[in-house]
Amino acid sequence: MPVSQEVQNAMNVIFKEDSTLYAARGWGQRSGYGKSIAILNIDLANAWTRKGYRFTCEDMDEQIIPGTQRLIAAARKKNLPIIYTTTAFCSRFDIGAFPLRGPWEDLMLGTSGVEIDDRIKPVDGVDTLIVKKRPSAFAGTHLGGILRAGGIDTLICTGVTMAGCVRHTVEDALGEGFRTVIVRECVGDRVAAAIEWNCFDLDQKYSDVEPLDKVIAYIEGNEVPVYQYPL
Amino acid sequence: MPVSQEVQNAMNVIFKEDSTLYAARGWGQRSGYGKSIAILNIDLANAWTRKGYRFTCEDMDEQIIPGTQRLIAAARKKNLPIIYTTTAFCSRFDIGAFPLRGPWEDLMLGTSGVEIDDRIKPVDGVDTLIVKKRPSAFAGTHLGGILRAGGIDTLICTGVTMAGCVRHTVEDALGEGFRTVIVRECVGDRVAAAIEWNCFDLDQKYSDVEPLDKVIAYIEGNEVPVYQYPL
Amino acid sequence: MPVSQEVQNAMNVIFKEDSTLYAARGWGQRSGYGKSIAILNIDLANAWTRKGYRFTCEDMDEQIIPGTQRLIAAARKKNLPIIYTTTAFCSRFDIGAFPLRGPWEDLMLGTSGVEIDDRIKPVDGVDTLIVKKRPSAFAGTHLGGILRAGGIDTLICTGVTMAGCVRHTVEDALGEGFRTVIVRECVGDRVAAAIEWNCFDLDQKYSDVEPLDKVIAYIEGNEVPVYQYPL
Amino acid sequence: MPVSQEVQNAMNVIFKEDSTLYAARGWGQRSGYGKSIAILNIDLANAWTRKGYRFTCEDMDEQIIPGTQRLIAAARKKNLPIIYTTTAFCSRFDIGAFPLRGPWEDLMLGTSGVEIDDRIKPVDGVDTLIVKKRPSAFAGTHLGGILRAGGIDTLICTGVTMAGCVRHTVEDALGEGFRTVIVRECVGDRVAAAIEWNCFDLDQKYSDVEPLDKVIAYIEGNEVPVYQYPL
Repeated sequence: MPVSQEVQNAMNVIFKEDSTLYAARGWGQRSGYGKSIAILNIDLANAWTRKGYRFTCEDMDEQIIPGTQRLIAAARKKNLPIIYTTTAFCSRFDIGAFPLRGPWEDLMLGTSGVEIDDRIKPVDGVDTLIVKKRPSAFAGTHLGGILRAGGIDTLICTGVTMAGCVRHTVEDALGEGFRTVIVRECVGDRVAAAIEWNCFDLDQKYSDVEPLDKVIAYIEGNEVPVYQYPL
Repeated sequence: MPVSQEVQNAMNVIFKEDSTLYAARGWGQRSGYGKSIAILNIDLANAWTRKGYRFTCEDMDEQIIPGTQRLIAAARKKNLPIIYTTTAFCSRFDIGAFPLRGPWEDLMLGTSGVEIDDRIKPVDGVDTLIVKKRPSAFAGTHLGGILRAGGIDTLICTGVTMAGCVRHTVEDALGEGFRTVIVRECVGDRVAAAIEWNCFDLDQKYSDVEPLDKVIAYIEGNEVPVYQYPL
Repeated sequence: MPVSQEVQNAMNVIFKEDSTLYAARGWGQRSGYGKSIAILNIDLANAWTRKGYRFTCEDMDEQIIPGTQRLIAAARKKNLPIIYTTTAFCSRFDIGAFPLRGPWEDLMLGTSGVEIDDRIKPVDGVDTLIVKKRPSAFAGTHLGGILRAGGIDTLICTGVTMAGCVRHTVEDALGEGFRTVIVRECVGDRVAAAIEWNCFDLDQKYSDVEPLDKVIAYIEGNEVPVYQYPL
Repeated sequence: MPVSQEVQNAMNVIFKEDSTLYAARGWGQRSGYGKSIAILNIDLANAWTRKGYRFTCEDMDEQIIPGTQRLIAAARKKNLPIIYTTTAFCSRFDIGAFPLRGPWEDLMLGTSGVEIDDRIKPVDGVDTLIVKKRPSAFAGTHLGGILRAGGIDTLICTGVTMAGCVRHTVEDALGEGFRTVIVRECVGDRVAAAIEWNCFDLDQKYSDVEPLDKVIAYIEGNEVPVYQYPL
């Protein structure tokens, strides 16, 4: 579901002005890939990937899920660590302050909404599932620690939402010392303009945004050795 | 420096569509004020408030600094805790991964750029200055801990940039259990559309955005007791 | 399983010297209770509470479990929030660096070892269970945020181990802005001297250590209002 | 200032029993060195290293400072990153809950107590100084992020106190994905038994404890390449 032509035109005006300013000031640089990669699939659970939830996002069946399937398949061949997040709570107390602002009480553990979409489901005992409680996959979790222990320096990111969990995760990643690559076709939101806006803005300041084909080509290339746990 | 009429019109289209969708799904709620307030001035240091830096933001002299002066004056009368952040580093190692993406090496401790603008300067020994190293005032700092110890549950936020440090701070604040109120006239960015976009988006999902006069009226009202440190 | 008389005598020598020094320098103060209390039961899961695990601790059946049952019963009457932690992992990657030092790979999700002991089991949907990945209940978790959102300023702590998870949790709690009270009869370890040493040391510097009867009397007293979620 | 013979004898009894139990259960393993090392000098500021403060520790002039000087000299020859911490606050609000338990208000920014001892002082613009606010060098700081960005996987630790800041730092380090080596002659406390106890306990569970000569020999050996910032 693309944005309307009117909106896209206006965004193009904004993006052109802004990227000129950023370039003149030393932003807009590429961080590229480091030495060791993991895949991070953010909140691709049913409450976001399937119809009928208050968190439901667009373009799942046509684009985001098939794209993520291709990415995961390429990553498995290289034995890359594959990490999933969901956002889920066990009690009212566990949700903290979020219900002040939105329908977070929909995301209860034990309901199907918070389970990872079975079209891309994690392999038990092999993949890593982080049950986070906040937008960022780093805030209030142990993700930074296990990435460091596992020798990872670069995250390839998919998932939703661009204005929320994906954005916040890649910002935190840079502060935690990690490069990130957002896969353009594999990220979504509830509102189309939020995807455009955040892909532009993050690409200028925090994270490379790259097309799926190019990311898969990189993973399949010789540059990415088959991963072995480093300890 | 407002956005152009063309851009504003397009944004109005986006915002109307999005706020309808959000309202239908339970977002767009007000969090309001809790029981105990602090002021948080984010990165109002010279590298952002004065001309000629690569981090320089717009509308400082005309709007953001005078507005923040008024806010601080009102807060001092009620003895509210006033917290400032700056972003500053002591060595290349201290900057971490940020130079991969932008001109963060401009922000060195000991240079005037990272000092709080003296038009709103902190009172030594009374106000609290956090030398943060990341966009969020919570990530990699002790802010959450001292707010809790001080009995604060609500932050009134000013500063820059809306797309970066302010946005990330209010998102983290909600996860850390705090309400936030962004003061509309006291926040800025390097690009005008980023202010519009983020005020809309954050107001829908993470933080109230309120006009300065209304915030000051609240502080001056009887609802806000003169603050006393609670321990 | 108390320490031997010889060891206890030597510890008494140490404790006497140290408490004199601490008192002369302004340590050894009481923090007491704040305004709002939660119970935090640390790692009272089968791998620690039952025989035959590599994490098994002493004195469970005779003392720690019955004591914690009494504490929980008193807390439920006042509707206090009851929080449990366990330590559990979903993959080798999820355990991070811990296997470098000890048998942490025993603690896999889906095994009975990491389930809370059913003699004190949480009430589904009411109590809060934190699946932590590190010794401290605060490090790499969202605990600080939900305590603040819930208006809690004081934690009453039980569990194991005193040298590890309990110690680290109460230290972090103070930094996060919370008072703690360790219930003397409800904490344990794999080695008896570690309990004595850490109760002394933490009581001097980070946390009150109080007998169970006194803690229950406090909870049952009028000082503790029936808890209501504050948002 | 060693512990008395009586105390040492009792501790030997404890340590023998405990290490037998730990060994039988898979603890007491060596983590060793990884691929890239930094030095972390914890709170070797005047309030701990010089006489007359309420935080003053023992054995500074005879042992800890000279030992740390030797370590730093060896590290500079290999260009290893050298990180210092101090603990310091700018206002009562900044200290949070700590004054509930001890004389933390002694540690104010701008006083000589919180400055790094000039016998081992950092090189401006080259070394990294972290002004922490809690015992752990990781809690509420950006240390984890910059170590990762700098490609470091192992910390060689000196400083004080063993029961507080050093202990808490090496525990957090393991959770954050880092190996640590505590240099036996370069760590201290206000109470002698605390050094013995914590060196034993941490060596069993969280960190190697190694003699200074052996650590320096390792740094001077071919195994440690001259460090270059990796980005």
